[in-house]
Amino acid sequence: MADQYAQTLDGEQPSATGPLRWEEPPEGPVVVLLDQRRLPAEEVELVCTDVPALVDAIRTLAVRGAPLLGIAGAYGVALAAARGYDVAEAASLLEGARPTAVNLGHGVRRAAEAYGTAVGRGADVRQAAAAVLAEARRLHREDAEASERMARHGLALLDELLPGGSHRILTHCNTGRLVSGGEGTAFAVALAAHRVGRLRHLWVDETRPLLQGARLTAYEAARNGMAHTLLTDSAAGSLFASGEVDAVLIGADRIAADGSVANKVGSYPLAVLARYHHVPFIVVAPSTTVDLETRDGASIEVEQRSGREVTELPGPLAPATAAGAAAGPVPRVFEAASGVSGALVAPVGTRAHNPAFDVTPPELVTAVVTEEGVVSPVTGAGIAELCARSRQVTIS
Amino acid sequence: MADQYAQTLDGEQPSATGPLRWEEPPEGPVVVLLDQRRLPAEEVELVCTDVPALVDAIRTLAVRGAPLLGIAGAYGVALAAARGYDVAEAASLLEGARPTAVNLGHGVRRAAEAYGTAVGRGADVRQAAAAVLAEARRLHREDAEASERMARHGLALLDELLPGGSHRILTHCNTGRLVSGGEGTAFAVALAAHRVGRLRHLWVDETRPLLQGARLTAYEAARNGMAHTLLTDSAAGSLFASGEVDAVLIGADRIAADGSVANKVGSYPLAVLARYHHVPFIVVAPSTTVDLETRDGASIEVEQRSGREVTELPGPLAPATAAGAAAGPVPRVFEAASGVSGALVAPVGTRAHNPAFDVTPPELVTAVVTEEGVVSPVTGAGIAELCARSRQVTIS
Repeated sequence: MADQYAQTLDGEQPSATGPLRWEEPPEGPVVVLLDQRRLPAEEVELVCTDVPALVDAIRTLAVRGAPLLGIAGAYGVALAAARGYDVAEAASLLEGARPTAVNLGHGVRRAAEAYGTAVGRGADVRQAAAAVLAEARRLHREDAEASERMARHGLALLDELLPGGSHRILTHCNTGRLVSGGEGTAFAVALAAHRVGRLRHLWVDETRPLLQGARLTAYEAARNGMAHTLLTDSAAGSLFASGEVDAVLIGADRIAADGSVANKVGSYPLAVLARYHHVPFIVVAPSTTVDLETRDGASIEVEQRSGREVTELPGPLAPATAAGAAAGPVPRVFEAASGVSGALVAPVGTRAHNPAFDVTPPELVTAVVTEEGVVSPVTGAGIAELCARSRQVTIS
Repeated sequence: MADQYAQTLDGEQPSATGPLRWEEPPEGPVVVLLDQRRLPAEEVELVCTDVPALVDAIRTLAVRGAPLLGIAGAYGVALAAARGYDVAEAASLLEGARPTAVNLGHGVRRAAEAYGTAVGRGADVRQAAAAVLAEARRLHREDAEASERMARHGLALLDELLPGGSHRILTHCNTGRLVSGGEGTAFAVALAAHRVGRLRHLWVDETRPLLQGARLTAYEAARNGMAHTLLTDSAAGSLFASGEVDAVLIGADRIAADGSVANKVGSYPLAVLARYHHVPFIVVAPSTTVDLETRDGASIEVEQRSGREVTELPGPLAPATAAGAAAGPVPRVFEAASGVSGALVAPVGTRAHNPAFDVTPPELVTAVVTEEGVVSPVTGAGIAELCARSRQVTIS
């Protein structure tokens, strides 16, 4: 049985605690998540005491975002090991929770390999669990470092592409601190521009159906004091037409060997709009997002989510009293995301098409920014070179 | 004071009654609207006994859709005349209710002119009111006939552009019976294709922020037994990429002299996607939608609506018991549309950009289908010729 419970933040801010951490209370180790389904109304943490609870949190988007899913997956394996569950079964459960997100599988496998290696060297259960946890922590730390490096490379690229340095950036979905061990991917670049006074405006797509832009990116932009405006996804079109977008910055859930980018549904139409209006379309993602096993865009498995995320609206949010939830079972705020019935907006029985992602071909991507540097133009050769570099070089 | 009340449909279907009609109960004449804010959950009529009530219904989208707004505007002037209000003031109020919708102004002015002409010929108040009502009824009838003719021309165009006749059509917003004195504009073409067995599938954009696609087009498609699937607006991108869209059919709120088309926000990105994928992008609208006074796209005034339509979600819908509402004051179902607070989805204080429309330049429009025939390619000369024809020829 999945076992999870909520706890309030007792005045601490998630900017201090981060979206995910490992804790070892007397009752045994747990993975503590900031419950992203409840943002921005409430900052409540979700404590996962076993792997099914964490899998449920991943599926229902309590925790989400490509890099953070990798970290969550690794800690999930560490949790299974520390609690004496079957590590291989836990790894398989975790890896299957979101099929398109390559980082999830990457984090899970890396942690499971650390376990296997430890066991192979004669480690006992306790030592092997410690080895997995150390590996999860290493991944977490590396991801924070990667964020910093992506932000640096991305800012340099913006300055090169847009001399003059007063950038109006459009972004889609949520790619900030909430998705990462550090400050995120695409959002981290915008934040870096903001910090040096070169972000003029951040346009935030609301990102239907689950509204991560409205709920999470607007929340992160406000916390960081960035000038920002929310819009429906399809209102981006006329912003391009009126010349009010200087660049698009998005993240990625998977990058194929040919440079095709799977990212939140709505990314591909932005890429087409950007191309039509001669605006740079920049993908920011750690090099672990590249999956050389996936040959091209057509080979990317795109997760189809429940049509109810489209035909139903989420139930009303809990009152916006920050950190004011009582301990106990967490009411499901984003009902549609969790498969529980929300308010019906389409007629009963309406069928909906609800892919979680779409795929942008490399020819529409101006550049892929990673912690190892920038790939531009985006070609199979460029991606291969990036991977060769990132998988050899120790991160400085 | 605006005066309106709700009445149930007593088993009658709006397909029988239509979205708007004139009635003369003993208490005096009224304009009866199907309250589109409450669809698809409930079929409830809104009875407007004065012009401010009708203006409120127009502003809050209880009645909407380019051609129907023209009809509503004309009946509004008739209501003012019949009830003895100041006709010029009523006309001005009505015309200002939605600035981008050219048909609204057209209907209002036509009715007001009929009043002026009657008065000029020495008619008394009662005779002048009768003349206005006759003019509103004529406009209503003409619009129904125009629907039929647009559907015929549109179907012929589809068959010409897409030989083989198994069309997968993408549509945006709502353009069916609910917007018209007849069967609508773009939707009427899809319906005509369905009736002759040549509609393979209708893709229905949900149309944020007010979800007219999810609420109204899905409702009309289901009522007509058309194969259809709902999607978020930005999920259309990958449908184009995978070759699952054969044509886009949309309506128009205003067509400028150069052929630029103002329509529901989200139309322009579809036009760019259609162009990029070599898919016909077809605008279906009565010739009255053309405004020769508006020279080009840049001259079109785009209505900006409240950011709360983006930052708040509508309140929960009433239970989906068709025609089950009690008589009495209508609860505001689509709170965001009516300016009343809904459930907050973005952080408190988030600023939103919420244009109601966007403008598609003529070079991205494959054809404009009107009751007078098809303009293709879309050029200023073609539009001028269309207007010359439509404003001379008596509709047969």
